[in-house]
Amino acid sequence: MQVLALSGGVGGAKLGRGLAGVLASADDALAFVVNVGDDFDHLGLRICPDLDTLTYTLADEANPDTGWGRRDETFRCMEAFGQLGGETWFRLGDRDLAVHVRRSQRLREGATLSTTTAELTRAFGIRASVFPASDQRLATVVLTPDGPLAFQHYFVRDRCAPTVTGFRFDGADEARVGGGLTAWLAERTLDAVVICPSNPFVSIDPILAVPGMRQQLRALGVPIIAVCPIVGGEALKGPTAKMMDELGVPRTATAIASHYAGLLDGFVLDDRDADDAAAVAALGLQVMVTNTVMRTLDDRIALAHACLQFSRRLQRPRR
Amino acid sequence: MQVLALSGGVGGAKLGRGLAGVLASADDALAFVVNVGDDFDHLGLRICPDLDTLTYTLADEANPDTGWGRRDETFRCMEAFGQLGGETWFRLGDRDLAVHVRRSQRLREGATLSTTTAELTRAFGIRASVFPASDQRLATVVLTPDGPLAFQHYFVRDRCAPTVTGFRFDGADEARVGGGLTAWLAERTLDAVVICPSNPFVSIDPILAVPGMRQQLRALGVPIIAVCPIVGGEALKGPTAKMMDELGVPRTATAIASHYAGLLDGFVLDDRDADDAAAVAALGLQVMVTNTVMRTLDDRIALAHACLQFSRRLQRPRR
Repeated sequence: MQVLALSGGVGGAKLGRGLAGVLASADDALAFVVNVGDDFDHLGLRICPDLDTLTYTLADEANPDTGWGRRDETFRCMEAFGQLGGETWFRLGDRDLAVHVRRSQRLREGATLSTTTAELTRAFGIRASVFPASDQRLATVVLTPDGPLAFQHYFVRDRCAPTVTGFRFDGADEARVGGGLTAWLAERTLDAVVICPSNPFVSIDPILAVPGMRQQLRALGVPIIAVCPIVGGEALKGPTAKMMDELGVPRTATAIASHYAGLLDGFVLDDRDADDAAAVAALGLQVMVTNTVMRTLDDRIALAHACLQFSRRLQRPRR
Repeated sequence: MQVLALSGGVGGAKLGRGLAGVLASADDALAFVVNVGDDFDHLGLRICPDLDTLTYTLADEANPDTGWGRRDETFRCMEAFGQLGGETWFRLGDRDLAVHVRRSQRLREGATLSTTTAELTRAFGIRASVFPASDQRLATVVLTPDGPLAFQHYFVRDRCAPTVTGFRFDGADEARVGGGLTAWLAERTLDAVVICPSNPFVSIDPILAVPGMRQQLRALGVPIIAVCPIVGGEALKGPTAKMMDELGVPRTATAIASHYAGLLDGFVLDDRDADDAAAVAALGLQVMVTNTVMRTLDDRIALAHACLQFSRRLQRPRR
């Protein structure tokens, strides 16, 4: 199968790893379009948290304990940096740092983020193609009653404590779908688009905010499915549920499906949310109910497998 | 005593550590003017090898095995960087890296190199004042039969293998003696200037190439002494002897003394070079012969003590 996946960080990367495990034959092709709204410049380095989380997860290099950074990590540089009075709220491991230094160097040399990402994922031995949502800067800004917050200030420095009233994607007007993604799509007959179980507001929406992205996905004429990031009213990782409360949206699978209305053909929700199936179907979507909680690599592969089967079922009526 | 020392890297820093050990009372004051000709931008970081070597040496943080970098060092970032295809010829330890990241951050924020250096040396608990020779860029270029080489390319990447035909100090015309040094000198009655046993061509000459530096030192009206970096025809560290051969200068203490002619009042040479004493005296310089080889901290303190005594002897006739 030939599959395009949209992903943010941790949750998306887990399903991404499953997809890479399933789509491993010579006939298969897998590409990711990854959120860049979290990207920021820090200590003179361009840091792309979602690209890195996906890269590390696909390469089995992700730190299983923290949900960010690399496994077998040390923090010698950061500790010494703190002793010199430097800010340490964004913890950069020594081996993680190498990725940011290399990326920043290549960007300074004039390489695009797409090229740099391709080089890095290749160096990590990753077979799938990984495309940043845009080579242009597109910065998620979190709107709060006390004013706008840069995403990493909200997410890491302030630990998602501020109340969210909305979001802004600075630079989105000037962002463009990258040439690499367009070429990758032109070279093959795609079978499905999978929106991974990432935060819809700050991981997937910034991707869809790139002008032309939504239209380009629909124009592919293949099933687009999403896996619900809310299970039993909770987000497995990150502030999705808290954001839904603050935005006045019910914490349900149905609310997530509504959020993506107009884009999706199918929706995957967890066994625990089976009661939502009828409401999601009423939105005009095909529904699959399965286990979506990915604790092990087997869980990831099983969910990926189920998603691909589901999208195949959807495919027939559309062709 | 109130002493100003001119220093490059390793050899100079050793005597610098001795001076800091001797000049430790409340009445004492010690400042360093440090070569910046080796400074370069690498991986997006401003690296100042001589400032760092002096800082680490004064803080007893220098790596005793390598002659560069910090003690108890690891290279996790650099190893990971090499795995990503990055250049690793300039080895940056994880804890060393923190200093370059912090310095580069402060410079980007608009702080001068002087301010940044003062902050860093304070963070390392150093009591002496450390002034870069200039806040402006002044880059030592090594001239070779195959063309000019940036200093670190000559020194580290090419391991001093190319034949040297001369040197150029790019930017020297626009460099200025820093306000911090000028203020430090204005605030006190200095007793002596000590030129540490650093490479005269690429460590001390770039300092003296700052317009007004030489005149400002002479105008202090205090004895200026130099410690010979050549002992028994060899440099204890670095390419000084090789450079002298290539430049057609005899590898002698006398040749070093001649090099500094017009600036010095006194010259310190090693016991092994006692035969040069008469020739150095014939240049119009006072001479002290002593052990100048610093293997231990005691050696450093003994040489510093001897130098200060020597400069006191010189002081009387001049007042």
